[in-house]
Order: sequence, then C-alpha cells, then structure tokens
Amino acid sequence: MGTTTAHATISLDGYSAGPDQTESDPLGRGGERLHQWMMRDPVHPEDEHWRDLLARPLAACVMGRNMFGPVRGAWDRDWRGWWGDDPPYHCPVFVLTHHPHEPIEMAGGTTFHFVDDFDVAVRRAQEVAGPEGLVRVTGGASTVQQALRAGVLDELVVDTTPITLGGGELLLDGLPGLRPEPVESGHSPLASHVRYRVLSGQLP
Amino acid sequence: MGTTTAHATISLDGYSAGPDQTESDPLGRGGERLHQWMMRDPVHPEDEHWRDLLARPLAACVMGRNMFGPVRGAWDRDWRGWWGDDPPYHCPVFVLTHHPHEPIEMAGGTTFHFVDDFDVAVRRAQEVAGPEGLVRVTGGASTVQQALRAGVLDELVVDTTPITLGGGELLLDGLPGLRPEPVESGHSPLASHVRYRVLSGQLP
Repeated sequence: MGTTTAHATISLDGYSAGPDQTESDPLGRGGERLHQWMMRDPVHPEDEHWRDLLARPLAACVMGRNMFGPVRGAWDRDWRGWWGDDPPYHCPVFVLTHHPHEPIEMAGGTTFHFVDDFDVAVRRAQEVAGPEGLVRVTGGASTVQQALRAGVLDELVVDTTPITLGGGELLLDGLPGLRPEPVESGHSPLASHVRYRVLSGQLP
Repeated sequence: MGTTTAHATISLDGYSAGPDQTESDPLGRGGERLHQWMMRDPVHPEDEHWRDLLARPLAACVMGRNMFGPVRGAWDRDWRGWWGDDPPYHCPVFVLTHHPHEPIEMAGGTTFHFVDDFDVAVRRAQEVAGPEGLVRVTGGASTVQQALRAGVLDELVVDTTPITLGGGELLLDGLPGLRPEPVESGHSPLASHVRYRVLSGQLP
C-alpha cells in the first residue's frame, strides 16, 4: 500500500487555525502568520526542504468539509473550494460531507468528490493511490484527528511556528496515547519541523 | 539585570502535565513519560546539552503553589515540597500562595519563602539574583503563563516529547500574540528542544 500522510503547521500553543474563522478570514485571527515560513521569498534553505515535502505529487486527498469551504448544512450555494480554478492538489480530493453533491471537476487534474463516510473516503483515496501513491489527509484539524484515531496515517509532519494564537483549532486534541516516532527534523528562524512515523495500535 | 527563564517539557499536544493530577501522581496520567528524555541512562548526547541547561546554577526561583505541593487552601498539614530534604534548587524559592507561611529552610541552600503576590515574588527573586544571576520560573503552567503575561521572562526553553497526553495542563493557554525568537534548537529521538528569547511588549 502507498503512504498516507498529513502535514500541518501549528502555532507554539498548538493551533492549526486561529480563533474566529470566517469566510473572509478562513485561517482565523492571526492564522495567516502560521504559514510565513513557506511564503517568504526567498524561502529559508531549511524551510525549503519542508515546503518541498508539502509539494510532493499527490495521488489522492481526504479533506474535511470545513477545509473545503464555509458552506454548512445543505449545499445552498455554488462553492468550488478556496483555491480558484486550478487547485494545488492535481488529484481526486474526497471531501467529507453528509450532504450529497455531484463531483466537481477543476482544472489541473483536481476533482472534488463528496463522500458521506470517513472510512469510505480513506479507502477510495488509498485505492486510487495504489501501492506507490501518496494520500494526503489535508485537514482541518478534526479530520487529521479522525485519521489518527482510525489509525490510517503512516506519517505526520508538523511545522511549529514561534507565535501564539491563544485560541482556535488545536491540531491534536483529545488524542491520548500516541507515540509517533520522529524520523527527521529541521529548524529555521520561522519554524521547527518534525516528520513522524505514526505507529498504529498506540491508543489505549 | 540577570536573566529570568522558564524551562518546560511538553507533550506533542502541548501539555506540561497529564490529566488527573493527584498527590501520588503529581504529573497526572502519563505525565512521567514527558521527562524520559532526561532520565535515560546514558542520556542521548543531544538531550544532555538541554539537561545541562536545566541544571544551570540558579540564583532564585519563583514557583506556583500547585507545583510546590498538593495542599490547597490553608496550611493544614506539614508539607516541605516533593523533593526530600535537599531539593534541587539550592537557592531561595519564592512560592506563590495567599496563605501566609513561615520560610522553610532545607538542606543544600534551598529555602522556601511564601509570597502573596506574583510581582513581589519576581521582584524579590530578581533582587536576590542581582545583575548576573539566573532566576527560574519553575512552573506550573499557570505560573509560566503569568510570567509571560507580565513580560518578565527573558527566555523560554521548550522540550517537546513525541507523545500525546490528550488532556491535562496546557503550558501555553490563552496567550495570543507572543512571538518568541528561536535562538537554539536540537533534536533527539526523545525530544525536540528549542530555546527562545522572549521579546517583551508582544501581547496585543
């Protein structure tokens, strides 16, 4: 089987998004500062490696509905994601929602499929990926938590930025007993990066 | 003025102590695993440097009452700390409590002084330390937060261990707007270490 990964940037106090997320401020108050480590031009040489990890070609993605967009409940408006006509995934993206929706085909190879069940979404993504492909659980936090709880992640990459947000969405919440194994690390003035191998069967 | 520091080990999900802290389990459920990085014999060479940082001679400490012991409210029993006759501080330790108590002199140079007010405790510790000495805000988490909120920390060292506790005491909680500057970092299989310079005047 291929690899199933998640990659998240968090604040020093553990938040992957700030408080008060809105459609015009989808990362919440202060949340856009989380990603400065990969936005700088030129990017710091150490950070470059971790941005490259994030830019690995993906075979398929699993995405929570709140990450896909601000529409809640029934699909009462046209919404095609935050990323314009050509989203940066270039693969099938399985979006979790209890509200049925036809697939949305975008430019560049991205197609959003809407799936009712987390396990089904992961299985379909892993089938698409086959024995060599990379599946990313893109987020948000609750979807990454669901993946950790279900034991389907092989890898977790965490970039910690030296800011505090004081509230928002904790990447890891209510998940005791994980013992991921650090396999690679790096530092820049803008982030501390660790890649973990996630061992299954750790939760008590 | 000397340096005022805090040094804490946290889980990957941000806890400096696990849930359900009790007198027989003062670090809470799973909390003792936080400190394995410094307990191993032999300690990993990378961890050794950070253990040495923690072992720097102290001029004075500021400590929350919950870190000092399990007695709450009035001093209705004799309690001299968790650390036996010769605590590892070897300096005056200013313990925060609203309940007056005579100083307790221990072996090895440690004396516990009981102080009603955080600012007074920090000022007394910094006076004892003078222009060269090191003051440590030892914890627990709420006392470190108080120090960050008051802007009295020059330095914060965080060791992150690759375990999750799923609950307990968050080291950094309700503190938006900090931008500590990473000045040193290191990694071992048991911990990611970062030393931050804390810049004052960052909170909004």
